[in-house]
Amino acid sequence: MNTSSLSSTFAPLQNDTFIRACLRQATDHTPIWLMRQAGRYLPEYRATRGRAGSFMGLATNTDYATEVTLQPLDRYALDAAILFSDILTVPDAMGLGLSFALGEGPKFAHSVRDEAAVAKLAVPDMDKLRYVFDAVTSIRKALNGRVPLIGFSGSPWTLACYMVEGAGSDDYRLVKTMLYSRPDLMHRILQINADAVALYLNTQIEAGAQAVMVFDSWGGVLADGAFQEFSLAYTARVLAQLKTHQDGVRIPSIVFTKGGGLWLAEMGQLACDVLGLDWSVNLSQARAMVGATKALQGNLDPNVLFASPAQIQAQAVKVLESFGAPHRGSGSGPTHIFNLGHGISQHTPPDHVASLVTAVHEHSRRMRA
Amino acid sequence: MNTSSLSSTFAPLQNDTFIRACLRQATDHTPIWLMRQAGRYLPEYRATRGRAGSFMGLATNTDYATEVTLQPLDRYALDAAILFSDILTVPDAMGLGLSFALGEGPKFAHSVRDEAAVAKLAVPDMDKLRYVFDAVTSIRKALNGRVPLIGFSGSPWTLACYMVEGAGSDDYRLVKTMLYSRPDLMHRILQINADAVALYLNTQIEAGAQAVMVFDSWGGVLADGAFQEFSLAYTARVLAQLKTHQDGVRIPSIVFTKGGGLWLAEMGQLACDVLGLDWSVNLSQARAMVGATKALQGNLDPNVLFASPAQIQAQAVKVLESFGAPHRGSGSGPTHIFNLGHGISQHTPPDHVASLVTAVHEHSRRMRA
Repeated sequence: MNTSSLSSTFAPLQNDTFIRACLRQATDHTPIWLMRQAGRYLPEYRATRGRAGSFMGLATNTDYATEVTLQPLDRYALDAAILFSDILTVPDAMGLGLSFALGEGPKFAHSVRDEAAVAKLAVPDMDKLRYVFDAVTSIRKALNGRVPLIGFSGSPWTLACYMVEGAGSDDYRLVKTMLYSRPDLMHRILQINADAVALYLNTQIEAGAQAVMVFDSWGGVLADGAFQEFSLAYTARVLAQLKTHQDGVRIPSIVFTKGGGLWLAEMGQLACDVLGLDWSVNLSQARAMVGATKALQGNLDPNVLFASPAQIQAQAVKVLESFGAPHRGSGSGPTHIFNLGHGISQHTPPDHVASLVTAVHEHSRRMRA
Repeated sequence: MNTSSLSSTFAPLQNDTFIRACLRQATDHTPIWLMRQAGRYLPEYRATRGRAGSFMGLATNTDYATEVTLQPLDRYALDAAILFSDILTVPDAMGLGLSFALGEGPKFAHSVRDEAAVAKLAVPDMDKLRYVFDAVTSIRKALNGRVPLIGFSGSPWTLACYMVEGAGSDDYRLVKTMLYSRPDLMHRILQINADAVALYLNTQIEAGAQAVMVFDSWGGVLADGAFQEFSLAYTARVLAQLKTHQDGVRIPSIVFTKGGGLWLAEMGQLACDVLGLDWSVNLSQARAMVGATKALQGNLDPNVLFASPAQIQAQAVKVLESFGAPHRGSGSGPTHIFNLGHGISQHTPPDHVASLVTAVHEHSRRMRA
């Protein structure tokens, strides 16, 4: 697919705070965006989803995907937009048949549990994911330079979890059984996934994504040793193939392993710009460990948003102060992108998000004064 | 309750490998026991449970509880027995009404979500838990000195999770909402829980428990900072009140925080003998960090037991070698107690457990040869 001719026609970026922070450059305030910021906690999202009929109906329709991606930006002074899509679009394009029953998580019609099923897997034709790239281009145009647009995918390991289990899991019994008893099959799946994810993210970049993020949502369920072999190595394989520039502009990459705090030193060796962290990580320690090479993104517990605005403000300040003194000057240095440590809950009161965004902007400006 | 007169009548301990390893004394082999070793993966357990009618029917009947506790010892050369009970008996005795629907997790009839419900909480009369202490004494007698008996409880924080949520949870939204918005109520619950757990474990010790373990199953869901304030501090409060001896014999204590690997240095300061670790922790690093003061227990991924016997053996060797060279000689030094990093799965083939126990005993003897 050739979508690269499009990107040079986009409006210039007005708020580059997020991109600068990704590249460890000084900013006037700490940028903030929220994982799953376009989602069910917003009444306007629920209205659009109602019109679309289903989650996939929403994600595969360019106009709807554009509409819901921009909804949180109209309410809050967020510093980035993230493509409205799902982490599992790639295995869906491999023919596994993704669906979302109401009130439940993702489900595949076909799971990948034996040698025959693995043999059938291949990097999918990107034409099957054209709805994603069309949405990226449409959102980028609609943003009109307000804030940068983040593209994303699930990590090779996280995709494999769903492909083998067929759905979410409490114990990852099926995927880990394959990992321990047929490591050859697991490596085969992960190689295909890594090459597919790299191609998918590169095509998102060509379509207009200004940063890309790999969600290793289930990396943290692996044992020490298995994480390095079955998750980290394939995230590295994705990163090795990623475009770093588009039309001469740097495209930062973010890796987020939920529950991966114990492997931070090893993740510090990845060829990405930013590491996402969940709330179990101490930001001050993380900065000391990897802040010399990586920007850090995170890490407020989303459940803080159920407390009062004053309490939300206090917890946001705690996270900012835990990261510590902002980097200033013209060179590169440790930078922080504020986010939650996981996706925002569907039960979150929308006005509490406004309190959070204001608190992060105001306090992070005070820290620089 | 005065049960202490009983314990002096118990038979002398024949296999003290587990107790010695808890106290960081050299042993001939690495002791092994498995969390939830008396459980649904054993057909003889399912038969007894069928006769008992329900989980609580099983746990509250002294004969049944004794029978199922001993079942895995008749199959495998395990180095310790653990009381058959549940981590939630204490809040049940507080009047919250514990039950287990078939195929589901624990559930409370009454949850603790507001000031009025918190005001009603108190350390329960230990007479309401007499069925537990009777089971401890009965099991200790039935063991007849074969291996030591471990007593246990949920941690104050883990009990609070279930008390507020009323059941298990995916996101801990209710308990964390209370934590962030009404920390005063949360601290009140945790104080009562800590004092109740200490009294409960001390009474188990008086009834015959030869070691005690605190299961902080949900400590790992807390944010950095919140873990220290709402979980670790109350585990410390339990430990400060624990009996260290019974009839002149040292009673080792074990603390296991699932997902707590990031806080290992701080847990190293606890007044316990052993730290339990899940599979995400690197045992070699953990030994370097806390091995000078604590024995380490863990940490095989229970899903390894779904692989072939040869693969199980290889993974068991990996865990043993990760801990490294055994401590020898007459003084104290770093010791390892082999276990899973979480409870054994109900789907585990029983003969695979035999392969694991044999592999751990044989290889750990080779490491000492």
